[in-house]
Amino acid sequence: MEWSEASTDLCPVGMTIDLLGEKWMLLIVRDVVNGVHRFEDLRLHLGVSDAVLADRLRKLVDAEILEKRPYREPGRRPRAEYHVTARGRDLMPVLLAFKQWGEVHLADPARPAIVAHHRGCGGEVAVDLRCEQHRDLTIGPDEVAVVPGPGARRSRTPLPKRL
Amino acid sequence: MEWSEASTDLCPVGMTIDLLGEKWMLLIVRDVVNGVHRFEDLRLHLGVSDAVLADRLRKLVDAEILEKRPYREPGRRPRAEYHVTARGRDLMPVLLAFKQWGEVHLADPARPAIVAHHRGCGGEVAVDLRCEQHRDLTIGPDEVAVVPGPGARRSRTPLPKRL
Repeated sequence: MEWSEASTDLCPVGMTIDLLGEKWMLLIVRDVVNGVHRFEDLRLHLGVSDAVLADRLRKLVDAEILEKRPYREPGRRPRAEYHVTARGRDLMPVLLAFKQWGEVHLADPARPAIVAHHRGCGGEVAVDLRCEQHRDLTIGPDEVAVVPGPGARRSRTPLPKRL
Repeated sequence: MEWSEASTDLCPVGMTIDLLGEKWMLLIVRDVVNGVHRFEDLRLHLGVSDAVLADRLRKLVDAEILEKRPYREPGRRPRAEYHVTARGRDLMPVLLAFKQWGEVHLADPARPAIVAHHRGCGGEVAVDLRCEQHRDLTIGPDEVAVVPGPGARRSRTPLPKRL
């Protein structure tokens, strides 16, 4: 199948963007990954309204990206902290891909505001494109061709064949 | 500096999300990378309104992620096609990180709707986390610690020190 004929309904990029393509969703995941677990801390740190934060946290819990864990401060009623699930931790490459692009193209690459370390050895962690055939090589964005796969579905509104 | 004290103003994840954390922005980049270059084709392919598409294309051109190239069909007035710049192509790891997550967690991993190939050899391309110290190893999301870097700025509203 050619691109011009393929439906985008099943595109995993589009599916992920549908779920997470709203700025608070990924910013909340970033904060929780970085250790901000409580509603009040998230609200303060992100400068987001109560209503929006509550809504996005509910969506992230529904999507099993975050999970609630109870905690209780002395003399207070029990409340919930938010932690990433395995599914949420799998968003690390997404967050680090954003980091890397922002560092090179929007921020000052010489003075990084955040650094990703390998816990094992302290080395810096990068997001790389790798070919399964040459796993020791990093490949450039120009070397990648994205094509419809075996699960692609035919579009009911195909585009003109100029792709 | 600890996380609880660091300002998020300079966070490159946040900067990138500010620019691209809106669903049409990355969906348009995806389509242009895949060869959809014309306004009318993008409109049809994405099912987005004229006004929203025009606005997002303008933002992507302003951000130097896309560039306009003139074309002219016989008997018609000249128009512009949209192509990715080098800066835009650098978003490939972001798109492929979304693809990978969506494939595993939202779609059917056995029947991928899209496949990323290495142009050189046809091998499948994956987004990997790599440590600069062991470039032949893929590291897991749990092995990454993200900490404030040398360019971090102190927050005027530090969080309680429970991070």
